[in-house]
This record gives sequence, C-alpha cells and structure tokens, in this order.
Amino acid sequence: MKSVGLVVEYNPFHNGHAFHLQASKKKAEADVVIAVMSGNFLQRGEPALVSKWYRTQMALLNGVDIVFELPYCFAVQKAETFANGAVSILNAAGCNSLCFGSESGEISDFLETIAYLKDQHKVFNENIKHFMETGLSYPKAIALAFQQLPNSEKYLDLSKPNNILGFQYIQAMQEHGSTMKPLTVARKNADYHDEHFASETIASATSIRKAIFSKEKENVNIGQYVPGPTNMLLQEYQHRFGRFHCWEDYWDLLQYRLITSSPEELQNVYEIEEGLENRLIEAAHTSTNFQDFMSQMKTKRYTWTRLQRLSVHVLTNSKKTEMKSLSGNAAYLRLLGMTSTGKEYLNKMKKHFSLPLVAKLSAYKNSDILPDIKAARVYAMAFPKNIRKEMLLQEFKQPPIFIPS
Amino acid sequence: MKSVGLVVEYNPFHNGHAFHLQASKKKAEADVVIAVMSGNFLQRGEPALVSKWYRTQMALLNGVDIVFELPYCFAVQKAETFANGAVSILNAAGCNSLCFGSESGEISDFLETIAYLKDQHKVFNENIKHFMETGLSYPKAIALAFQQLPNSEKYLDLSKPNNILGFQYIQAMQEHGSTMKPLTVARKNADYHDEHFASETIASATSIRKAIFSKEKENVNIGQYVPGPTNMLLQEYQHRFGRFHCWEDYWDLLQYRLITSSPEELQNVYEIEEGLENRLIEAAHTSTNFQDFMSQMKTKRYTWTRLQRLSVHVLTNSKKTEMKSLSGNAAYLRLLGMTSTGKEYLNKMKKHFSLPLVAKLSAYKNSDILPDIKAARVYAMAFPKNIRKEMLLQEFKQPPIFIPS
Repeated sequence: MKSVGLVVEYNPFHNGHAFHLQASKKKAEADVVIAVMSGNFLQRGEPALVSKWYRTQMALLNGVDIVFELPYCFAVQKAETFANGAVSILNAAGCNSLCFGSESGEISDFLETIAYLKDQHKVFNENIKHFMETGLSYPKAIALAFQQLPNSEKYLDLSKPNNILGFQYIQAMQEHGSTMKPLTVARKNADYHDEHFASETIASATSIRKAIFSKEKENVNIGQYVPGPTNMLLQEYQHRFGRFHCWEDYWDLLQYRLITSSPEELQNVYEIEEGLENRLIEAAHTSTNFQDFMSQMKTKRYTWTRLQRLSVHVLTNSKKTEMKSLSGNAAYLRLLGMTSTGKEYLNKMKKHFSLPLVAKLSAYKNSDILPDIKAARVYAMAFPKNIRKEMLLQEFKQPPIFIPS
Repeated sequence: MKSVGLVVEYNPFHNGHAFHLQASKKKAEADVVIAVMSGNFLQRGEPALVSKWYRTQMALLNGVDIVFELPYCFAVQKAETFANGAVSILNAAGCNSLCFGSESGEISDFLETIAYLKDQHKVFNENIKHFMETGLSYPKAIALAFQQLPNSEKYLDLSKPNNILGFQYIQAMQEHGSTMKPLTVARKNADYHDEHFASETIASATSIRKAIFSKEKENVNIGQYVPGPTNMLLQEYQHRFGRFHCWEDYWDLLQYRLITSSPEELQNVYEIEEGLENRLIEAAHTSTNFQDFMSQMKTKRYTWTRLQRLSVHVLTNSKKTEMKSLSGNAAYLRLLGMTSTGKEYLNKMKKHFSLPLVAKLSAYKNSDILPDIKAARVYAMAFPKNIRKEMLLQEFKQPPIFIPS
C-alpha cells in the first residue's frame, strides 16, 4: 500500500484542506493518507476550537485514513521543531511521501533554495544575527536575511508562512536521512492568515474561526466553507459542550498561574527568557482578559505567536528541562483514529514501525507521553464542571476512533 | 492608654463577638482594643466570607480601635502556630493584656493546667505519640492523651476548641516572656462549630455563614445575630461584588493547580507529606467540586480542617521553605485599620513597637510580606473579571481604613 503523509491542524477541517488532501493523494498516487495532527494546543499557541478527538473524526470522515497525534513538545513550537517532530513521526510510520501545501507549489523551488542556502549559510546566519540584534523577531530576521543574499529573488519567497514550513519539512527530511519523497501542492485561494472570505467555497481556518466566534452578531453561514461532516461535528460539539474553545476560556487559569508563581519558578518554564517572567507577572496583575494581556506583552522583539506559545507553556506548566529532553525526536506514534483502510495499513506495516505504536494509553508506561495527557487535561478545564470529570479521564479511556471506510 | 489585645477572624463579626469585645475591654479596664485578625484565608483552611478590608470595617465600627493582620504564615495554621503568631504581634504592639473567649471562662484553669502539664509533659507526649500511631488525628490524640493523665478531670477540658486556643495563647506568652496579662471571658451560648441557632441573638459564625449561603432557600434573617454595621457591610459586599466567598469559588483553580503539578512539585508545598501528593492529584481528576474532593481525601488520620488548610497552601502555592522560615515570629505589624482612638495610641506608642509598622505597603521592602499579598490576590480571583484587576492591585493601593471614633 502506497502512503502519503500530511502535517495538519484541522482547526477546523475545511474545503481547502479537502482540496489539499485529494491533490496530495493524487500527486503521491497513494492508497493511504496518514495525517500527523497537533493535539489540543496548536502551533500558533492557541487552544484548538474543538478537541483532538472531534478533529480526528473530521479528518477520518473527510478522507484521512490514519491520524497520529503530533506530541505537545513538537506541536506548540516554532516551525523548525514542529516540522522536525512531524517528519520523525511520518518517517517512523513508513510513509512513502510527505506532501505539503505551499504558496510556491513547486518542489524544485524548495530543493534549489535549500541547496543555495547550504552554500550561503555563513552569510545567511550572520545576517539573521544582525537583524535579531536590531530587535526584530526571528521570522522577520530570517525573511530579511534571506532577501539580502545575492540573487535571492530567484529562489523561494521565505516571507510566506507555508513556504517556510515546507522548507523546514524538507530540511528535516534531509537531516533524518528520510526516504520519503517530498511533494508540494499549491494552496488554493486563501492565505494562511486571511481573516476575510475571498472565495465562494474556500476560506482560511482563521476566517472560519472568526466567523464562528462572531456567529451571533454576523450570522455567517460557515456551511459553504466546510464539508458536511465538519459542519455536523461542530454543531454536535456546540450542543454537547455549549462552547468552542478560545484563549479567553483559559484566561482565569493563566492569570492565576502567573499571580501565584515566583519569578524563579517562571524561569523554569519553556521559552521564558531575558526577564520576561517579571513582565508576565506584572501584565497578569493589570490585565482584564487575554487580549488585554497580550497587548501589554507585545513588543517588536516578540511575535504575537511566540508570546501565545509561551503563554500555553505557562498554562500547562511545561518546563524547559522536559521540553528540551523530549523535542529531539518523537518517541512514540499515538494513534488517535483510523478508517478500515488505515487499519489494514497498520496491520500490515506496524511491525516495521521504528517507534512504538500507542493505541491504548494504559499499555504505554513511558513518562514521555505525560505532557500530552497534561495538555488534554488543561484543555478540559474549559468544559462545564458537570462534564469536566469525564473529559479529564477521557485521555486514558478513549480508544482510537474507528470509521469504516 | 491601657490596651487589651484580641485574636479574631470576624467571619463575620456577630453579636457574640460584640459581647466578647465589651466584656474583654471591661475586664482589662482598657482604653484601646487591638485586634490581630486573620487575612483573607482563615485558620480552618477556608476563604473568608468577605475580604479582610470589609472585616476590618466591621471590627472598627463595632468597637475595635486597631486591626493588625495576622500574616498568612500564622493564620492558616494549627492552633499552636496560630497562637504564637498572634501573641508575637500583640506583644510587639505593646498590649497590656490579651483576653480570649473560652468554654472555661476561668484564667486559673489555664494557668493550673499549664503548670500541671509541665510536670506531666513526658507521659503526655508519649500518650500523644501512642494515639497518633493508632492513626488518630493530632487534635484527637491530644484530647485523649490528656484524659489519660492522672486527675486530668480536675483541669481544663482540652477537647473544647476555644480552651485549646486559650491554652496555646498562654503557652506562647510564657515562651515569649510576654508581660501581657492573660485574661479570659466565658463564651456566650454558641459553641464554636454550632451550625444551628440556639439563642435569639447569639449564633456561631458557622451557623451565620450557613444561613447566608442557603439564604434564598431558607430565607433566614441574620440581622438578629449580627450588629447593624455588619449587616450593612454584608449587603454592600453582596451588591458590589455579587457574591460571598466560599471554597467552591476556588475549586477550578485548585483543580487546575493539581492537574498541572508534578508530584515532586507538590511535595514542596507546605503540609504535604507521606505521599499525599499522589492522592491529591488523583482526587483532582475524579472530583466534580470541592466538597466532593474533600470527601475523597478524608481519612481518620487527617482532620477536615487540616485537609482544608493544606488545600489552601496548594491553592496559594505556599512552599515548605518559605512557610517554615516565616512562621517563627512575626516580622512586621501590618495595619489594616484604626479609629481615632487607635490613631492616638499608634502615635504615642509606635516608637516603642518592637516590629516595623506597615501602613503603606510600598514603603515596606521586605519580601516576608509577599505571602500575604499573594494570598490576597488569589482571594481576588473569585471576583468577576471586570473588577478583579482593581482587587489585584488593591493590596498595594489600599491605605489603612480610618473610622473616626
């Protein structure tokens, strides 16, 4: 069985994802689609709109055959670490190819840019350092450092978020000595961060989430931008739990954590550096909600995304020591769900997997999975008291979701 | 000016407190009444019904002239440490006497019992150890150990909570070499823990709180059990903040703290010992509210009160190291409020105080007051989001309350 790997968040699964999935499957000539998906907290440092179990269902009902969880220690990370974790999981699961969406759409662009940067790495790194010293954020410094290189305009546009991610995937594949074939398909219509609707059927996840949270006011029908199963599952979630998750749901907990932590304790939290601990505590005292808090924290040096990720680490009390020891290579393949086709693939291939397959949490005794469980439990704190207990225990009881193909 | 010291919680100030205050003032022939009062968390390990600022107003409007805060590191403690902190503060403030309410009402009972126990201390301590080893709680073990001593029936009844506290006050005074005169007045009608109304005008604070929290259902008028100013201030609090504080208001935060802490981190929290950390985490996963959590934690060995205190320390993230280093002797006199008479006393006497007088927090740079500020901020988390910020900053901005006599 020929397999293609996708790296996804599906927050939520929309028509653009469906397009990418089908195009990838076709391009890779694959029988099986394997997705590695972030858990309950995402790369941009946000809680997912709905839990990973619901997002797994969306994936399986829309053409994915196997969903593995991208562990917390890779998911809530900068592009490089995120890509490294995802690649190590798809690699371990024996994927034949990895196909990502990009603004470029041409895999040769990526391969040539990587070769070019290998040549130019000394100047490139000096440029990055220079721009960082002027107080710019890391992503901005990279884009500018690249632009300063001779003939850089002939290569990939590294100011585009999906080009950067794709670049990191291929770099990680080369570092892992992966045999996966790198593939890319051009993203359709919507820009990653778009907040407005530019097409009849395709919209970014950002604009869909925005519509969902302002639903009452604007009465936007998201049905035209998401497949039927997504729409159904979103409605079920709303009905069952009375909410979708956003940062404001966790503000009380973040504020409480910050006002009860000493600066010394906060220094142990991942990504906290350079006296940020004191600014975080101060901002917690003087903010009325998460938006307010973020506005107080924002400077030129720190991107909004980086500050949000750091806030997630404070919220989940994720320490530098554990995050650094876990974010090298993935240690397990946590199976969130599968279709009949996915099951067939697993049965055939699992003996060749280079990492343990975790289908039942109680059978996996390694402590390296604890951050994922903790993240799921913190996520569950947003559920109403009467059903929260069930959600806190779900991580241990929930078997992988199975959807017959 | 002759002064009498009282040790109080006023949760809330009721007619029994008013009786004790007047009787104490008379017995001590005092011109000034100085109260040392627990802050926002109390000896039984509970958040106070209303904040220390409102309870200070109640005290000043009902005959107290000066209110000092009993620091967190003494207030949320077993009787011995609680008494030690209170005595060291009244001592430092130059009180001429300390007057406590007791079931006995006879100071000679206390002095004779202490002398007797000095003689019997070896057997007494062995008895305590023996009963502790059978799995009983410390207070039960003390009461039984005392009963087993020869002729103990001629002495103080140490199974009564206020007798125990009084006993600890006098013992602390002796240890401090205090020149304060010990005095006691008999408590009127209500038992400390009474949950029912036994008199027309006197009820325990416990029964008053119970009535307040079940107000809608039972429509109890607490007006007959509390002085006018208390009733007025309670109504104002309810109107301004929409609530009175109880443990359930802090359940989300406690649960969150427990599910995000490692057992090793919890071992650093004050009063956590003997593998309790794992039981706490487990109970947090499987409880739906604080009452439920406490029921799961309760065993013969741990009193309800001790488990509640320990829960407060988890909630405020109070560490063994800081609590042990601070709970020896008081380090400052935090002035919460005063009347004109109180002000006159302070002006005359403050140069003789053996501890720094803290009226303005910003002028006191010592870190030993940080646990009190932290406790006030955790307490403030129960306020609605829109006014919480003001409350978080209040600890620094609030000057002592002044009520003209």
